[in-house]
Amino acid sequence: MSRLIKNTFKIIGASPGTSVFIGDQKTNEIKISLLQYNQSGFLEKEIKNLNELENIDEKSYINWLNIDGLHEIKIIDYIGKKYNIHSLIIEDILNTQQTPKIEIFDDYIYITLKMFDFNETKESINVEQISLILNDKNVISFQEKTGDIFEPIRKRIKETSSRIRKLDSDYLLYSIIDIIVDYYFLILEKIGDKIEILEEELVIEPKKNTLKEIYKLKRELLFLRKSVWPIRENVNKLEKSDSQLIKKSTSPYLRDLYDHSIQIIDTIETSRDLLGGMLDLYLSSINNKMNEIMKVLTIISTIFIPLTFISGVYGMNFKHMPELEWKLGYFIILGIMFLISIFMLFFFRKKKWL
Amino acid sequence: MSRLIKNTFKIIGASPGTSVFIGDQKTNEIKISLLQYNQSGFLEKEIKNLNELENIDEKSYINWLNIDGLHEIKIIDYIGKKYNIHSLIIEDILNTQQTPKIEIFDDYIYITLKMFDFNETKESINVEQISLILNDKNVISFQEKTGDIFEPIRKRIKETSSRIRKLDSDYLLYSIIDIIVDYYFLILEKIGDKIEILEEELVIEPKKNTLKEIYKLKRELLFLRKSVWPIRENVNKLEKSDSQLIKKSTSPYLRDLYDHSIQIIDTIETSRDLLGGMLDLYLSSINNKMNEIMKVLTIISTIFIPLTFISGVYGMNFKHMPELEWKLGYFIILGIMFLISIFMLFFFRKKKWL
Amino acid sequence: MSRLIKNTFKIIGASPGTSVFIGDQKTNEIKISLLQYNQSGFLEKEIKNLNELENIDEKSYINWLNIDGLHEIKIIDYIGKKYNIHSLIIEDILNTQQTPKIEIFDDYIYITLKMFDFNETKESINVEQISLILNDKNVISFQEKTGDIFEPIRKRIKETSSRIRKLDSDYLLYSIIDIIVDYYFLILEKIGDKIEILEEELVIEPKKNTLKEIYKLKRELLFLRKSVWPIRENVNKLEKSDSQLIKKSTSPYLRDLYDHSIQIIDTIETSRDLLGGMLDLYLSSINNKMNEIMKVLTIISTIFIPLTFISGVYGMNFKHMPELEWKLGYFIILGIMFLISIFMLFFFRKKKWL
Amino acid sequence: MSRLIKNTFKIIGASPGTSVFIGDQKTNEIKISLLQYNQSGFLEKEIKNLNELENIDEKSYINWLNIDGLHEIKIIDYIGKKYNIHSLIIEDILNTQQTPKIEIFDDYIYITLKMFDFNETKESINVEQISLILNDKNVISFQEKTGDIFEPIRKRIKETSSRIRKLDSDYLLYSIIDIIVDYYFLILEKIGDKIEILEEELVIEPKKNTLKEIYKLKRELLFLRKSVWPIRENVNKLEKSDSQLIKKSTSPYLRDLYDHSIQIIDTIETSRDLLGGMLDLYLSSINNKMNEIMKVLTIISTIFIPLTFISGVYGMNFKHMPELEWKLGYFIILGIMFLISIFMLFFFRKKKWL
Amino acid sequence: MSRLIKNTFKIIGASPGTSVFIGDQKTNEIKISLLQYNQSGFLEKEIKNLNELENIDEKSYINWLNIDGLHEIKIIDYIGKKYNIHSLIIEDILNTQQTPKIEIFDDYIYITLKMFDFNETKESINVEQISLILNDKNVISFQEKTGDIFEPIRKRIKETSSRIRKLDSDYLLYSIIDIIVDYYFLILEKIGDKIEILEEELVIEPKKNTLKEIYKLKRELLFLRKSVWPIRENVNKLEKSDSQLIKKSTSPYLRDLYDHSIQIIDTIETSRDLLGGMLDLYLSSINNKMNEIMKVLTIISTIFIPLTFISGVYGMNFKHMPELEWKLGYFIILGIMFLISIFMLFFFRKKKWL
Repeated sequence: MSRLIKNTFKIIGASPGTSVFIGDQKTNEIKISLLQYNQSGFLEKEIKNLNELENIDEKSYINWLNIDGLHEIKIIDYIGKKYNIHSLIIEDILNTQQTPKIEIFDDYIYITLKMFDFNETKESINVEQISLILNDKNVISFQEKTGDIFEPIRKRIKETSSRIRKLDSDYLLYSIIDIIVDYYFLILEKIGDKIEILEEELVIEPKKNTLKEIYKLKRELLFLRKSVWPIRENVNKLEKSDSQLIKKSTSPYLRDLYDHSIQIIDTIETSRDLLGGMLDLYLSSINNKMNEIMKVLTIISTIFIPLTFISGVYGMNFKHMPELEWKLGYFIILGIMFLISIFMLFFFRKKKWL
Repeated sequence: MSRLIKNTFKIIGASPGTSVFIGDQKTNEIKISLLQYNQSGFLEKEIKNLNELENIDEKSYINWLNIDGLHEIKIIDYIGKKYNIHSLIIEDILNTQQTPKIEIFDDYIYITLKMFDFNETKESINVEQISLILNDKNVISFQEKTGDIFEPIRKRIKETSSRIRKLDSDYLLYSIIDIIVDYYFLILEKIGDKIEILEEELVIEPKKNTLKEIYKLKRELLFLRKSVWPIRENVNKLEKSDSQLIKKSTSPYLRDLYDHSIQIIDTIETSRDLLGGMLDLYLSSINNKMNEIMKVLTIISTIFIPLTFISGVYGMNFKHMPELEWKLGYFIILGIMFLISIFMLFFFRKKKWL
Repeated sequence: MSRLIKNTFKIIGASPGTSVFIGDQKTNEIKISLLQYNQSGFLEKEIKNLNELENIDEKSYINWLNIDGLHEIKIIDYIGKKYNIHSLIIEDILNTQQTPKIEIFDDYIYITLKMFDFNETKESINVEQISLILNDKNVISFQEKTGDIFEPIRKRIKETSSRIRKLDSDYLLYSIIDIIVDYYFLILEKIGDKIEILEEELVIEPKKNTLKEIYKLKRELLFLRKSVWPIRENVNKLEKSDSQLIKKSTSPYLRDLYDHSIQIIDTIETSRDLLGGMLDLYLSSINNKMNEIMKVLTIISTIFIPLTFISGVYGMNFKHMPELEWKLGYFIILGIMFLISIFMLFFFRKKKWL
Repeated sequence: MSRLIKNTFKIIGASPGTSVFIGDQKTNEIKISLLQYNQSGFLEKEIKNLNELENIDEKSYINWLNIDGLHEIKIIDYIGKKYNIHSLIIEDILNTQQTPKIEIFDDYIYITLKMFDFNETKESINVEQISLILNDKNVISFQEKTGDIFEPIRKRIKETSSRIRKLDSDYLLYSIIDIIVDYYFLILEKIGDKIEILEEELVIEPKKNTLKEIYKLKRELLFLRKSVWPIRENVNKLEKSDSQLIKKSTSPYLRDLYDHSIQIIDTIETSRDLLGGMLDLYLSSINNKMNEIMKVLTIISTIFIPLTFISGVYGMNFKHMPELEWKLGYFIILGIMFLISIFMLFFFRKKKWL
Repeated sequence: MSRLIKNTFKIIGASPGTSVFIGDQKTNEIKISLLQYNQSGFLEKEIKNLNELENIDEKSYINWLNIDGLHEIKIIDYIGKKYNIHSLIIEDILNTQQTPKIEIFDDYIYITLKMFDFNETKESINVEQISLILNDKNVISFQEKTGDIFEPIRKRIKETSSRIRKLDSDYLLYSIIDIIVDYYFLILEKIGDKIEILEEELVIEPKKNTLKEIYKLKRELLFLRKSVWPIRENVNKLEKSDSQLIKKSTSPYLRDLYDHSIQIIDTIETSRDLLGGMLDLYLSSINNKMNEIMKVLTIISTIFIPLTFISGVYGMNFKHMPELEWKLGYFIILGIMFLISIFMLFFFRKKKWL
């Protein structure tokens, strides 16, 4: 997961509504694809030249325009003008550090969300900003980079009898958000797996790294929460809005989406609480280990230090030390030493250290 | 208690409202039973073939259809069509990872809850999802596996003069929820017992395992809370709703249920606070033990190390060491050593270490 | 303070509204007393037989029926029928684990609260459930056991010119709640005293038990809070309700009660915060003690270990050890040892350990 | 700052509205002073006998009656009757443990607040309860003890052209509250100073007392917060109330007061957060010190223990120990010892302990 | 970042609305500059004498009056009178410890905010209070000291075709607030950078200073939050207000500002949570280090203490010690010592200390 806040601010004092791309500068080409469909058929084409958009029959289809890559401001500006989008919204689309939000205008709706994708090979989470524009006949989706996350929707559109073909552009919008939310569940499942592995590690033998893992998971959940929290509210706004762009039949789907986002938030909170409890477990396990170590040191020291002292006494070179002359002196002393150590062991047993 | 989140997500991008079973795949047979009753009598039968449902007189009875097992999608789909249930609701019934919720439609009400059951032999908590559909004359209940938790209700239905026989399907729905909530109290009592045992352990002699027990209880309370919290709100929605399916006479029962759910939540929160306090007790008890160990080590070391040094000095082999020649040298040194150790003991007593 | 949750659940699946006594089974007799009063006089009698209640002139008096002991279900059931109380409310009265609540019906009001009583000899807190029923002319109070907590009200009723004699049954209800709330202040004062003693202990010399005392107080505050919190809301509901049972003149008294409950909650929260701070103090005091112990050990060891080594060197039995032959060898070495220990002491002073 | 709760409860079960003084019994005389003013002049007199109050021209002046000392119930009762104040309010005025609150009646307003005063010589905070009654032409202020905190207002009243002379009694009430709030800022500044001193102490060299100081400040902030929190709400109620006693022109002043109370609460919360952070700093600094101590002990022990062992070996008295006969044996062993200690030092440097 | 609260209180008891400057007394001159503009042109001049303000054509321009420096009360008072501003607002402008707030009057709006500026050379954050007055044709901005933060706006005003030239004074107000909010992002980015550096330090090798850095960042975030939190609410109030001073066209810009402030608050909260997690990491890393140290000490001591004892035994000077006479005694003992140390090493390996 990337930095906390980065290049978020536009050039300070720049006129609001200025189109500036904020994000990692990418060099890949921008890919624009158009998918038009109605109940009777569909049409798919890749747009190489923006002019191609001029001659399209928009009226008799639902039009889904997908733009992969935001770093060419001209293209985004062109689309902004064509679809009559407020310059502040264009600025938001270009700012990949945007907090998820929704803006409902009279003739279009703007939604921005974070897409979380788990990279299996790198074991890392990729975050990408998705911006969506809905108007009467069009859905425009903006992605930071080329990807195939929307492929399942395309497939469903191409099936003749699918529900999506029969419904309006708002259902397409819903489908796109739904797939993004599905990915959150995927990420949560990965995190859930890691939490279980950590829990087991803690019970058997906590490693030095365990805490860092806990911290990393906490961090990821923090970012996830930051991204999911607004979705809940936004979907609610969408359902409750009296915008004519949202048809009544889409309402149960939005409510379903709302329930999903609540479920995600719930799981995030529960995970955070679990991680908090694991931290306590870890810290006390360190303390217990320390106790273990100290006990060993103390037992050994406490037994041998007095014995060593006694042997030291009879190693002194005084002329007159009567015991040294005794025939059994040595064995008597060995016996005394033995008794002392037995006594010490009893003492430790009584203290439950052994 | 099982995993945090598991297979929760449907196949990513699948059309919403697709019937997919999400849960542990089970092999047991699905058991469908029908209990019909009115004030004058009752009728009970096990449904082997779904066609039997076609020829049933539904109008003159309250019909309680109970399905144990969700893994045969066909059956669930059939019931969904027969009772005219939205495909998204069918999807929710099949998803055993659903958060408890309520959906009130014009002609039916959908409720899903978690059933918590304590397994005495395994000392573990089983969670099961219960989905309930209420319409004018029917209550349909879906359980994940075969069980006898609703037996007490069946018994009451079979008693001629019982209140349930005189009232409508909404009272049956209430009775089912009420029995599930009763089980929460049972679980809480088990947890309360364990908390008391832990408290006593902490006061007498905390064991290494104590903390893990605390963590385990915390975890269970977390999952319990996650499941109970929505019940409170849902019961409230049910009472407040102006749905004609909920009769006025059921209202005090629902309020009673609402009070119970608040009592459960209260007890969960109190238990969590208690566990938090026990954690502090435990950690400080570890620290106290460490202090105890360190004190013993320090007392023994501090007394004998100087004495050993002195004996070392008179163990040196210098030619000219006048003290060695003294007749009483040995006894004088022994005396000095004795005085030093007395002094040390006084010092420790003053420091309150002894 | 007793168990967290106990026998709370009725027999699972029992028909709601079934009268079952939940609590510690008691053997003492149940005591029923009736106090009737109006502006001109009062009448007090003990009810031995429930039939006596039939022939009572209820219309021209305010009637206060007090029942000590809940374990004879028949009696409670009889009263429930006589005063036309809903079976669910009777169930609540019999369940001594009830959360404090209020239920406002058209013709009566039901309130249940916890009574906290400090037992001076045992130094423990007793909790008792008090249930109150108010209707037009009657107040019925249910206590778990025989007690004299309402004696001051009885005295005031017996005084001819007292305000209570002039006012209605709602003022009697208020007076009973007020006396229960007064007892909370008493308990809080006891807890406040203990907190001050603990604070002093912590500043002078924390004992091993201190933490357990802190935990015990925390626990008691937790239970107290659980009981007081709903009172605030219930008194508010009572004042705001448009029930004709609550006269307008009682309103300032209820507001006063409301203020008192807020004051109690405030004091509980402040006490909890104080205990939290004391915990930190205690833990750091343990740590400081450990540091103290370690310092002593380190100073003694660090001074004597090198000296012992030196004496060991000259205790070796090599044939050729020139220093041993020197005439002043012994004294030179003693001098060196002296210098080393001086140096060490300076080192510790510089480190501020001495 | 004094006890958490003290004699708060009236005599248990006493009739509500009974005048009982709750607080530290004081012996000083009660001082009553009256200040009358209108736009054209002012009149000041000390009231020795309550009868003097009968013959006063109240109509043509704003009358500010100030009572220092609450322990003579007769006086307070007299004033209560003269100005027609509800007996419950009189009870509140006499109870110095009252939580700050406001009561708006048709013909008068009652406000009670805590006055915090810093005693420079004793370095302690004095708390005093101030009760205020506002009616059409009068402001009555009750203080626990004699003091000069209202002197600045008296001075402003005596200035002919001051705003206070032109405005109504509600502005006088505002002025009194404003001066009390000013004192909160003073206290907060003192606390802020102490926090800065503690922060510096923590960075340079935390002392044993530091934590107790932190705890003391936390405690004081706790009490401060408890007193300020209700002021915010009360001032708001005062502004929002449609009481005719509050003139429209006073409204901006009340809003200003509201802002001030928010600023005070903000500063208290920030201070509490800072103290929380300082606690972490302190605890980790203790731990760091312990580490420091342990390192010294370990370095010294680990170097000398093996050396002492070697010298012990060659101090053994075996008949046949070849090394002892070697001519250079002694020096070879000294060399080996030297190498071992060099090696140990390298080891510690690698571990970054040196 | 400067002190928590400082000279915040006006002279206690001073008449409200008295102009008193509260802040660091500065000696620099006060700089007043006027920028007038409309669609056709602009006019800029520095005001040396307040009289110059009398003869200005205010009607045909938007007038931006900027005052750098607040310490000459006369000037501020003059402006207060000229633009008819309430004396309490003038008092607020002069009090640099003001909490951010907004006051909407019929004919003007007052806003006060904190400006955070990062001083690259000193690595410290400067806080400055900015007060803004908006009326029909004027924006008056007050800064504590001379600065060039508003330069970008001036530049945009001087561009002929810029949007700001076409719009009203409320857009100028928005632009000023927007630039201040941009600076918050800048500060947050700096803090974000520091957090990342600390995170890396913690993972590799926590230093002693790390915790103090964490504390410092926490402190800064605390002050930042205190300043940003009210902005969010104030911008909201501004948008929602039905003041005629705020044109409808400015509304989307204000909503954008609102979103930005939410984003800032979110980032602050996330940063605080991260710092909390880092604290746990740090503390456990200290504990781990302690464990490391204790292990080394224990291993060395536990191996050598028994060996030293054995060598002590054979260093005793008893006449009759048979082993000493043995020919291979010395080598046997050396062998036994070797075996003991091997055994000890196995023991430590089993305990996973090696």
